[in-house]
Amino acid sequence: MSKIQLRCKIWLEKDGEVVLSDWRVELLEAIDRLGSLRAAAAELQVPYRTAWKKLQETESRLGERLVDAEPGGAEGGRSRLTAAGRAWVRRYRDTVEDIPAKLENRFAETSLEVT
Amino acid sequence: MSKIQLRCKIWLEKDGEVVLSDWRVELLEAIDRLGSLRAAAAELQVPYRTAWKKLQETESRLGERLVDAEPGGAEGGRSRLTAAGRAWVRRYRDTVEDIPAKLENRFAETSLEVT
Repeated sequence: MSKIQLRCKIWLEKDGEVVLSDWRVELLEAIDRLGSLRAAAAELQVPYRTAWKKLQETESRLGERLVDAEPGGAEGGRSRLTAAGRAWVRRYRDTVEDIPAKLENRFAETSLEVT
Repeated sequence: MSKIQLRCKIWLEKDGEVVLSDWRVELLEAIDRLGSLRAAAAELQVPYRTAWKKLQETESRLGERLVDAEPGGAEGGRSRLTAAGRAWVRRYRDTVEDIPAKLENRFAETSLEVT
């Protein structure tokens, strides 16, 4: 007997195209934390090319640079979020916050009344 | 300049298949209110066959009858939700409730801090 599960998907879109989602925000956070898009891609277990494409897409749809690389070294410097990148990540996190957990709880709490 | 919008999709699933969603719950509510699957399909502007298929699917995935037709007349009697159908609709509505509006508000409220 398999379980019935509540699912919830939240995202930002513009002209019907995804701008930010859990996954894209995780990518931005990983870039900032690890200082590199390549390391972020590895952590999220996607090809570098995929991560790069998603980042380009997100920046182009928002019309803002979200990630900056500091100059330095042969392979370029540390990558980090721009002020705009940081603001979008915060806005997304502040919006979504506890909603998935709240939905799960409500769904679990109502189960007794049904059966 | 098109707007960035928050989107939110909530559904119940079992074995990776949709069991209930906003649309399916609206279908159940329309059947109960109008007393007929045919009238509900017309109201939701889908072919009767589509509405019928979705209802069968939902009942089969939940393993419960959600709609009953009272006997009577040449075309059968009034369709209405079973106790189980009513309980699932209520559970879904009680779970989802104000969440989409809450997300919209949070997203709108945080916009000032970003720009």
